[in-house]
Amino acid sequence: MEDTRSTNCPILFALDIFGDKWSLLIMRDILIRGGKYYKDFLGAGEGISTNILANRLEQLERHGLIVKQLDETNKRRFVYSPTQKGMELVPALMEIIEWSAKYDPDTGTPPWYIERLKTDREALIQEIYDQFQTRE
Amino acid sequence: MEDTRSTNCPILFALDIFGDKWSLLIMRDILIRGGKYYKDFLGAGEGISTNILANRLEQLERHGLIVKQLDETNKRRFVYSPTQKGMELVPALMEIIEWSAKYDPDTGTPPWYIERLKTDREALIQEIYDQFQTRE
Repeated sequence: MEDTRSTNCPILFALDIFGDKWSLLIMRDILIRGGKYYKDFLGAGEGISTNILANRLEQLERHGLIVKQLDETNKRRFVYSPTQKGMELVPALMEIIEWSAKYDPDTGTPPWYIERLKTDREALIQEIYDQFQTRE
Repeated sequence: MEDTRSTNCPILFALDIFGDKWSLLIMRDILIRGGKYYKDFLGAGEGISTNILANRLEQLERHGLIVKQLDETNKRRFVYSPTQKGMELVPALMEIIEWSAKYDPDTGTPPWYIERLKTDREALIQEIYDQFQTRE
């Protein structure tokens, strides 16, 4: 994929990984909503189709943003978790959330979350990181 | 557009505006590279086609991210500039740049820029804002 890039622009590098909105929404499910299983992503509310979901999960794994492992508590299903590279998308997601919450009159972001983003962002991000470090 | 959204998630709000990579690359040209004219966006290096460019500029204008005005110095061309809403994407772009520069072995971001992103981000962002306030 990277071989075919037209420029070495860092914005393009990220956009080439995400390609369309679905990959970033899956990362949102994993990083911010605590999604772990295929069914969590399928039921996230935006109506992703099973074939797009399977394809994007594969892409995210191939790009080293998530890992897929057998679930210890139920060996018949897989659990998805972020890598360090995937986790470090959290600050960019936080900026996007803050921007959208400001400009979307119908935003679903609760006021207390917006407040924390403004006044307590580092701790908020650290809490998210800790959650995954504990899980491993 | 917003009427058809499936959820009020703030990440989805932003992704619905950007839709594909081209809109965000145009915002990069305007916000970070000082692009003002149609030809600046056309020649940015990623090979955007004229019909996609015209369409995305219209969309960005409709979403209130940029304004299009007759160029004072040459009344036969238009100059594009960011609105406040458009300008406030800079912090999100900075996070994306930092992430990509870290994980892209071929990144085009110069080391001094990465260093400023890490140690002097607020001033860097303010410099970008000042540039547009002066222009108006």
